Amino acid sequence: MEQQTVEMITQMVLETIGRMEERSNGYQVPVGVSARHIHLTQEHVETLFGEGYHLTKKKDLMGGQYACNETVTVVGLKLRAIENVRVLGPVRKASQLEISATDTMKLGVAAPVRESGNIAGSAPVAVVGPKGVIYLKEGCIIAMRHIHMSPADAAAAGVHDGDIVSVRADNERGTVFNQVKIRVNDSFTLEMHIDTDEANASKIKTGDRVTIIR
Amino acid sequence: MEQQTVEMITQMVLETIGRMEERSNGYQVPVGVSARHIHLTQEHVETLFGEGYHLTKKKDLMGGQYACNETVTVVGLKLRAIENVRVLGPVRKASQLEISATDTMKLGVAAPVRESGNIAGSAPVAVVGPKGVIYLKEGCIIAMRHIHMSPADAAAAGVHDGDIVSVRADNERGTVFNQVKIRVNDSFTLEMHIDTDEANASKIKTGDRVTIIR
Repeated sequence: MEQQTVEMITQMVLETIGRMEERSNGYQVPVGVSARHIHLTQEHVETLFGEGYHLTKKKDLMGGQYACNETVTVVGLKLRAIENVRVLGPVRKASQLEISATDTMKLGVAAPVRESGNIAGSAPVAVVGPKGVIYLKEGCIIAMRHIHMSPADAAAAGVHDGDIVSVRADNERGTVFNQVKIRVNDSFTLEMHIDTDEANASKIKTGDRVTIIR
Repeated sequence: MEQQTVEMITQMVLETIGRMEERSNGYQVPVGVSARHIHLTQEHVETLFGEGYHLTKKKDLMGGQYACNETVTVVGLKLRAIENVRVLGPVRKASQLEISATDTMKLGVAAPVRESGNIAGSAPVAVVGPKGVIYLKEGCIIAMRHIHMSPADAAAAGVHDGDIVSVRADNERGTVFNQVKIRVNDSFTLEMHIDTDEANASKIKTGDRVTIIR
């Protein structure tokens, strides 16, 4: 066997071992389970809750967002309703309802899996508040799995904004989530966001830790 | 470098390549999504539906099992109910309710993830039928992910009854399920069974194909 071949093989083995070590020592991320919720524009807040109304804070979330005291009822194309959907503040430039795939079946809406903010052509839904109703022609999505990170976290984990990674949960129901989007922003606290379907299917709860495996 | 070392390295590389090929060409299995359902003893059938009552077949399932026309309402410790839970036939030696983790939260029961039939110490639940009620002191479980296989399928896939494998779904929501139990029986048709949480979290529907990756 030529020396060159031996060196090539050795290199391959070392890389393989490196990948195996990376797998067992991957970057750890705490999980936040997102229940169904809605983001609203100020205009829609006023339609639903009354002229001049401002959302009121119930609980701070990460990145300057907060759960509001206000809730709405949403109704899909099959005229089935889901009540007590939490409003998240502050108000946004476009209203957006984030629900689980289970919810889409209950409502009878064909919501796509999308990154937050990417609502073009997403599902329509009716939203009912105590003072009025709105009909969103689009805006109903299933949130794509993602990890919020500060630039420092991203550097430590060796990933970049927009990367798609896989994440492993080592528990009784052991699950690997592929197609997890990395989102990096100065305002972000390190957290992986999954929805209630994903949490229930993998037996993960808020605060559990998962591992980025590539 | 000694000849022995070169051979050892070569062997490691070949095994690694073998595993990589196995990963990309793994054994394919169709999926069946299991909605919540209940198995009953004949005694419980008669308590719920009337003396001398026999379950009636609505639709054949695999392995001699069938969905029945009969349904029940189940009520958990928080006195919340889930209606229209399908009964599966034929009758069994022990009654067993299989629900999703989402259902356990609605019902307020701490059901464990278990293989079918392993109900010792599982959660209690009340079951209501048109002619009577039963209180199962145990029997409410979340079904463990599993694959039904004939002995020939198992041989082709290179797995054995009782093995724990991982299964990969290559779709938009890309997910790997670890902790999947292999169950081999002459009466079994090749199928992976997951519950509605797992199906919704991974965007898999009945008939989709997944791949055994180890």
